[in-house]
Order: sequence, then structure tokens, then C-alpha cells
Amino acid sequence: MPSYTAPVRDMQYVIHDVLNASALDIGGYDELEADFTGAILEEAGKIASEVLAPLNAVGDLEGCRLENGVVYTPAGFREAFEKLKEGGWPGLDCDPEYGGQGMPYLLGTAVGEMFISANLAFAMYHGLTHGAYSAIHTHGTEEQKRTYLPRLVSCEWTGTMNLTEPHCGTDLGLMRTKAEPQEDGSYLVTGQKIFISAGDHDMAENIIHLVLARIPGGPEGIKGVSLFIVPKFIVDEDGNPGARNALSVGKIEHKMGIHGNATCVMNYDGATGWLVGEAHKGMRAMFTMMNEARIGVGLQGLAQAEVAYQNALAYAKDRLQGRAVTGAAHPDGPADPLIVHPDIRRSLLAQKSFVEGSRAFALWGATLIDRAHREGDAAADGLVSLLTPVIKGYLTDKGFDMTILAQQVYGGHGYIEEWGMSQFARDARIAMIYEGANGIQALDLVGRKLAADGGKHVMAFFEEIKGFLKAHKEDEALSDDIMAPLKAASKDLQEAGMFFMAEGMKNPNAALSGAYDFMHMMGEVCLGYMWARMAVASTKSLAEGRGDPAFHKAKLTTARYFMARELPSTALHLARIRSGAAPVMELEEAAF
Amino acid sequence: MPSYTAPVRDMQYVIHDVLNASALDIGGYDELEADFTGAILEEAGKIASEVLAPLNAVGDLEGCRLENGVVYTPAGFREAFEKLKEGGWPGLDCDPEYGGQGMPYLLGTAVGEMFISANLAFAMYHGLTHGAYSAIHTHGTEEQKRTYLPRLVSCEWTGTMNLTEPHCGTDLGLMRTKAEPQEDGSYLVTGQKIFISAGDHDMAENIIHLVLARIPGGPEGIKGVSLFIVPKFIVDEDGNPGARNALSVGKIEHKMGIHGNATCVMNYDGATGWLVGEAHKGMRAMFTMMNEARIGVGLQGLAQAEVAYQNALAYAKDRLQGRAVTGAAHPDGPADPLIVHPDIRRSLLAQKSFVEGSRAFALWGATLIDRAHREGDAAADGLVSLLTPVIKGYLTDKGFDMTILAQQVYGGHGYIEEWGMSQFARDARIAMIYEGANGIQALDLVGRKLAADGGKHVMAFFEEIKGFLKAHKEDEALSDDIMAPLKAASKDLQEAGMFFMAEGMKNPNAALSGAYDFMHMMGEVCLGYMWARMAVASTKSLAEGRGDPAFHKAKLTTARYFMARELPSTALHLARIRSGAAPVMELEEAAF
Repeated sequence: MPSYTAPVRDMQYVIHDVLNASALDIGGYDELEADFTGAILEEAGKIASEVLAPLNAVGDLEGCRLENGVVYTPAGFREAFEKLKEGGWPGLDCDPEYGGQGMPYLLGTAVGEMFISANLAFAMYHGLTHGAYSAIHTHGTEEQKRTYLPRLVSCEWTGTMNLTEPHCGTDLGLMRTKAEPQEDGSYLVTGQKIFISAGDHDMAENIIHLVLARIPGGPEGIKGVSLFIVPKFIVDEDGNPGARNALSVGKIEHKMGIHGNATCVMNYDGATGWLVGEAHKGMRAMFTMMNEARIGVGLQGLAQAEVAYQNALAYAKDRLQGRAVTGAAHPDGPADPLIVHPDIRRSLLAQKSFVEGSRAFALWGATLIDRAHREGDAAADGLVSLLTPVIKGYLTDKGFDMTILAQQVYGGHGYIEEWGMSQFARDARIAMIYEGANGIQALDLVGRKLAADGGKHVMAFFEEIKGFLKAHKEDEALSDDIMAPLKAASKDLQEAGMFFMAEGMKNPNAALSGAYDFMHMMGEVCLGYMWARMAVASTKSLAEGRGDPAFHKAKLTTARYFMARELPSTALHLARIRSGAAPVMELEEAAF
Repeated sequence: MPSYTAPVRDMQYVIHDVLNASALDIGGYDELEADFTGAILEEAGKIASEVLAPLNAVGDLEGCRLENGVVYTPAGFREAFEKLKEGGWPGLDCDPEYGGQGMPYLLGTAVGEMFISANLAFAMYHGLTHGAYSAIHTHGTEEQKRTYLPRLVSCEWTGTMNLTEPHCGTDLGLMRTKAEPQEDGSYLVTGQKIFISAGDHDMAENIIHLVLARIPGGPEGIKGVSLFIVPKFIVDEDGNPGARNALSVGKIEHKMGIHGNATCVMNYDGATGWLVGEAHKGMRAMFTMMNEARIGVGLQGLAQAEVAYQNALAYAKDRLQGRAVTGAAHPDGPADPLIVHPDIRRSLLAQKSFVEGSRAFALWGATLIDRAHREGDAAADGLVSLLTPVIKGYLTDKGFDMTILAQQVYGGHGYIEEWGMSQFARDARIAMIYEGANGIQALDLVGRKLAADGGKHVMAFFEEIKGFLKAHKEDEALSDDIMAPLKAASKDLQEAGMFFMAEGMKNPNAALSGAYDFMHMMGEVCLGYMWARMAVASTKSLAEGRGDPAFHKAKLTTARYFMARELPSTALHLARIRSGAAPVMELEEAAF
């Protein structure tokens, strides 16, 4: 029932009008002319809306099934995966040396948003493969790269990440899976891993599991964990899948959503594996996958909010119910459409301002990644590392909230599965949990990233906003409605940071009790910054007579909505943060 | 997997320590000694945790099925319903003239919370029956009362509410179902109704449908709607179910949650019905059911949050993961329990302060209903009528949010259905939608209830809080942490009300654009008021050496948490409200 149309115009606007990508002086960006990116985005949008979106409800209803140890994906998934591979989409931003197309991560992000909007459960199969590609590309030996990367880039083989065990998720130091070294340099991996997305399926010839395990005799805790390649079929001398490895699917989980993706319990019973990177340095290699995966998961929040919003908007324009309070908008009809009602508009604007602001935020983050990787720019790397937990935590929390708002627009129909709005909420829910539950993102942000490198990345973040405000301080049209709220919100965020510095030294709980609020606050400031940049870009376009004036006017109106209605929440977060540790830590465990 | 323990101690505390019920001078309240209420609550709690809770997951997994026109409930539901009937629970607060036990609504509310926590889908069967009982009790003829009430009170027969049609939910003026008068005084009802909870099932001999329909020739729109009793089996001269009526179940819906309750499409094909109350005054009669139903639905938000919190708390104490940042809490174990971490405590305290504050709010509301019904007190009736949309809208929005927080505590396991946390969220989601979607509650509050009777009820509400603050202004121990925040929040709410009065006159959209924020803000002030009352009650008990000091200290600590971390959101709502209509109304429909 729901449909999806790729927001190509808005993506083009962000890439060209707002970020001015082709002038950014990042390797490969000079090719990013509007015609070029437009053609790619149009093509990806077609795949998303015509191939992937129609399978979204199918995947939800049918789910995956485990039969005789083999996982079968829902009807149509195999054919769609073939189409994706034929178009070379999985390797869009991969290294040309291994068959990738070498496009910037910026484009990969835009295309990724589309595929995730259309079908999150489906997009995870190649999404996780991309993570495995990155880990091996960064930490693997030359031979490992030659063996695995071309097939991962093409998605002939897919990848997985194996971290969690039944008794340990966040606290990987408790891990029990072990890897015993063999004389030929390989390892025998034994243990049980759970929550393995795309752990098995029928869409690829081979599945390359990246598994964290302990080499016996190594250091205890998290410092004794190593990363291994454990393929489903051991690759033979010709580079083809050979003997079946000693691993199996224990069961597939019955989940709240993303039914189209098999979440497997994986049993490794002396499976042959090969070390990736250094022994006992597995977490470092895994974090390569995790950081990328976290940004990808943030994108899931945005992408599910986008598709939910599109459908809520269509319903609000179509469904006739009640009359505008200021007089019938369509007196000839039996009733006015929902969209005349202020409370429906409030909901739609919350959604619209979130998805457009987040898209700009995610694409800005992608330019930082490209600058870090393609230019070796440490400042960009530090900044995006700071922003990663915000992109993951804030975008998925809010993205889920937006799917709930969208579902609500449908009234009772929103609760009925055939209308499809429930699936968006159920699917979006996982993004708040996996790749580090959002509380862990907040901890990473406040406990680690703020102080990293002497705090210079967060200082750079504030400097960037300060520089932006300074550059536009003469702009009177935007001064009161746009720049002043951004300035106030940014000041709130800085004050929260100063509170953490002053109080956190004395009592770390004073900072950690406010970590979640800080993560949200920083997300709001980032979206506020993006809306201010969009307001500037659209003002300029209007003044120069470029583009569709209605589009740019809508950007300005939505920017004012965001500043007036959403950004003021930074003050609430600051008030909570300033209350310190006592309200949260005082109650004794037995008294809960 | 999840379990439920009835919060008898907390209910007893609210009824006796906080509300001081037996001294309230309301008919029947003098019997409410602590021993008496304690015995009833303990007994109800046993039914809830031993009979209803074990069927919650069964109902979710199995759902209802429609076979040859008959709906079958999940395994075990019939037997549990018999037990409920045997204990006389459905008639607890019903009129003794028709077989009820005549207890105050206050006790019915406390028991209702338990049954809903244990099994929402199940509790709806007798919950809706109670609504039908109330409508017939208030608006029916003597003969109708004699015919239907005893069987509804005992739940030998159950009831339904039939309002929604495929093209109209909120806007019932668009209704098409018609009722043609017959010579014998009955009517023939024809039309289709959707979303009919408990529309059919196998647990009762007869189902009494209350159906809204139009009598041809009557006024157009909402003023031409009448209410009819349309039984599944027409009651014969002996008062027993006789001939099958011309109505049938078209299908049962596939929903996001409450699978154990059959949500039916009902087809009326010239079914025989009898008018309840006056012709064309059906909405008035229906509102009797709706107001009660709305408070009951508010209770659902609280009740689902309670059971989700109980399980999240147990998990947080049990699951070992990571170490307290200030040093290992259990150095001998492999890791510390989740509850040592500040961000987990933040989440648990948000839940705890919500459920305990809401429980007090709901039970306070119940005393107002008792005062209105048993004493004919118009002021109490006006006040609870004002609070009804707040209880419904705020408690269900927040209650759902709390189930999401609780689910999050479980990390990945929260997303796996067998752990049960997903069901609480999926089930709680409906409460934001049915009995008037929460946007409608906000509209009812701001567009109707605020100004009702010249605004005297909202004035009385502010007077009550003012009086409370005045009575406790000498209390220095509570002054800064408790009374000052309540005063500030109440002032924010008053200012929002004044903004609506000043601006809403000029432009109704200026008020309606802030209606949702106002509803939440008022909910927060009500919970703040309850927490202040609990702080006063517990301070008194501690001073007098009554009860368990640990319990009362926990109340004070939780009150301080609520004041420091939750109540400050009133300032954010006020800021949003003051931004007026423009941010919400300015964007043209085509520009979304």
C-alpha cells in the first residue's frame, strides 16, 4: 500500500546548493557536476521505488525461513539482489582496484538513503557486506584483499559482523568464543554468536563472516580479542567457494521488524578462520566496520522517517475529515483534507524539518569522511568521529519518533498492518538498538569523543558554527528568525560542555547522567546549523533567480519552523544536564 | 518470559496516604479502610499475575481467528474469562440494582490498571462491556436496563461500540449507516462499521452492539446521528438470546498489536435495533461511553508502562555488562549489573516517575468521578471533564514512550519477540490512536474544555494547585526542590492559557497550533502536582514514623528526580506555544 519516491531534487539541492560539493577540493569531487549526480540519483531512485519498495511489505509478511540448516529469503529478494548487482550498486563507492566504481562516499550515502527507505531489511544484506569490505580493505593482508574484496564488492559474496554472544553485547570483554591457532597459520573458531544479521541466506554463493574471538593465552578482557575471517565455504586455490566450513545457523530470531533480513544464531564448531590485522587488536579492526556501520544506521533513522513522511503526507492530502477552523477550505466537498488542521500540520512539519535537516547533516558528514579518506585530512577525520555517535543516536531516536508521528496521521488505519505504516515504525525501532544501543552512543560521545585529542574536535565544531554565524551576521533577513536561534542553541551546547568539564572532573557521573541529553542537544544544533545553511543557500538562489522559487521559499518557511519549534529544546536539555548526577544516582538500587 | 506483580503497596499508598480516600466525604468512601482495599487489591493482583499475565504472550502469538463467520479467541482466554466472571470482577463498580458490587470507581480504576498491565487485549473484552453498561445505564429505558444490564454486569454478555466507518473516524458527521424505523418501534440498521474491538468472540452468549446510525429524514451531519442497541442474538421474551440478528463479521484486522482482541469489520444488513435515548441525540449518549472509555484508555498507557518498567528493572538488576565508572560495584563478579550505569538509571527513573505519578493522577481523577456521580458535584464533574483529554492523551503518549525506554534497556533482546518487550510497545501503541486520536484530545482540551462554562474549570484547577502551594509554603524542606518547580511549571501553563485567550480570539489557529504542546504541558503539571502531594505525604509519614522509611525516602528521591529532570519541559512547550500559528500554518499545502 505505501509507496516511495526518491527525493532526488532535495538531494541535488543539498549536494550542490548547500554543500557546493564540486568546489570542495576533495579528490574526485570535481566530477560531481549536477548532471552527473542527477543521473546517478535518478537511476538509483528508480531501482528503489520500482524494485525494492514493492518487496518491503512482502519481506515483512513472509519473513525468512530456516529449512534444513539453510535460510531462504522472502519471494522476490533473490531477483532484486541480482538486479542490484547487475547495476553495480553495491560497489558504488568501493575501490576500483577491486572492481568498485570509486565514487565518493557522499554519493554512496545518498543512494544508501534511497535503498534503505525503500526496503531496510533488504538493504542490510549489501550494507553489511560493505562493512566487511571496509574492514578487510583497511586491515587485511594483500592476499586476503585479493581473495575476498572483488567478490564482496560485486556482492557475489556477502559479509556479516559477529560480535554479540548471549551473555555479552556491549561488554565485549566478556567474550568466550575462542580461536585456536593451527600449524598452517589458520585458526579453529569455536563459540556461539547471536543477532547476526544476514547470517545466512540464499542470495550469495558464499558468506564471509567477520568474527571476534579470543586466542587462548592472550590478555583478558577486551584487549585479548582478535578478528577473523570465517567463510561459510572455504575458498579454494582458484578463488572459488570450496569445502563447507564448520559453522551453522542455530536458529533465526522472531523479531519486531526487519523480517526480511535473517537474524541468526551462528554456531562455530571449530570453523577454520584467518586472522585479520594483528592478534588481540580485533577491536581496532572491528571499529573500522562499526564507525561506518554507525553512520549507516543513522541513515536508517532518516530513511525510514522519509518514507513514512511521504506516505503520511499523501494520506493527509487525500483523507477528508472535518473542516478547517477558519472556514471550509473545500466547501464543495463533504469535508476538508486532514492537512488543513493545525495539529496535522504540526506533525507533518516536525517530520519534514527532521528528514530534510537530517539529510543535509548526513551528507555533510559524508563529505567529512571523503575529506578524511581521500585527502588524509585529520581534522575532518576527528570531526566526523565526533559526529558519528550523534548521527547514529540522534537520527535513529528521532527517526523512530517520526515514524510514530507518521503512523498517527493515519488514525486507526495506521495500526492495521496492511496500510504499511506500522512496518516503518517496527523496522525503524532496531536502528536505536544495534551497532551500539543509543545509550552507548551517548557514552561514546561524552565519555570519549568530547575529550579526544584534547577536545580539539569539539572546539573545531563550535568554531565552524561561530565562523558561519560571523560570515552571515550582516544578513538582516535571516538574523532574528534563523541566526539568533542557532546562536542561542549553540551557546546552550557549549554551556553543557563546560558543565561537563567542570563537574565531570569531580564526579564522572555528573557528565554521564547528562550524556543522553547532550547527544540529542548536539543533534539539534547540527540540524539547526544545517537549516541555517539551507536558509542561506535558498535566500541566495531566490535573489539570483535560480531554481524553483516555490522550493526555496518552502525551505525558508521550514527553516523558520525548525528554529521556532524544534531548536528551543536545547534549553531543556541544558536544564536537565545542569541538574547533575544527584537526581539520577541518588536512589538506591533496592529502592527502584 | 515477562512477569507482572501488581503494585498493591503503591496503590494503597496513593489511596490512603496521598488521597486520604476514606476521609474524602464521598458516598461509599467511608468503607475504604486500608484492610478492605488491601484485600481487594491483593485478590485482583493474584488474578492479574496468575491468570491474565501468562496469557499475554499467548494472545499475541496466536491472535484471534475467524472461521465460518465465528471469531475464536486465543487458547486459554475462555477459561480466564470464566474466572474473571466467577470473581465478579467485571461488575466491581457497577450498580447493585443490576448485580454490580457498587464499589467506587476509584477501586475499579486500581483493579483496571492491574488487569490491563497483565493483558491489555484481554482486558478490553470486559472494558468495552463496561462502556456499554454505562451508556444503557445512563440513557436506556427501564425495560432496556432490565433486559441488558444484569447480563452485561456479569459479562455473560459483552458489549461493543460502533462508531467508525471506512471513510469516517473522527468526523462522524459523514456517517452513512442508516436505521429505518419499523412499525413495532424497532429499527432496521444497515451499514458497515470498522475497527470494532471485541466485535465477535467465543466467550459470551450474546454480544450487545451499540451502533451509531442515521434515521432517514433526520438532520444532516453529526446532529442527525442516533444510538442503537443491536444485539447479536435478539433477546427473547424470557430474556434469553433468541434469533440470530442480521449482522456479521466481515473480517478481522491484522494489527500491530493487541492481537488477542478481535478487531472486526461489522456488517449490518437490516439488523434489528432499538433506539437508546432520544433520536438524533446519539452523540450525547455515546459520549457517556467515550469519556469513561477515554479515561480507561489513559489507564492503558500507564498500565503498559508499569509492566514494561517492572521487567526492564528486573533485567537491569540481573544483566551483567560493563563496570560502574566510579569503580566496580561487584568486583567479585565478571561485570556489574546494568543498573549501576547512569544512563540506565536515567531511563529507569523516567519510567518509575512516570508510572507512579500517573497512577496518582489517574486515581485522583477517579475520586473526581466518584464525587461527580455519587455526590452530584458539578465542580468535580467539570474538573474531570477538563482532565479527561489530558489523562487520555498525555498518559498514552508518555506510556508508549516508556515502553520504548523499557525495551531499550534490553538491548538487542528487546527487539526479539520472545522476550516480550516488543509486545508491550506494540500493544501500548493503539492507546494513542483509539477513542479519539491524541490530536483530537488536544483539540478537545484547547478548543472546548478550556473555555467550557466560562473557563471556570481550568480556573478551579489552577486554584487547587495555588491552594496546595499556599498550604505548604512554610515547608522549607520541600520548598526549593519540590514546590518551586511546581510553581514555575504551573505558571508556564497559565501563561500558555493566557496566550491562547489573547491570540486565539484573533486567530483560532494560534491556539490550535499549540494545542498538543498544551496537552502535554498540562499532563506534566498534573504529574508535578501529584509528585508534590506524594512528597508531602511521605515527609509526613517519615516524621510520624509510619510505614517503611525506605519506601517514603524513595518517594522523595523520585519526586526530586521528576522536578529536576521532567517538569522543566513545561518551558519548552510554552516557547513552542508562543511561536503561534505562523510556523505551523505558513507553508502552503503544495510546498510540503
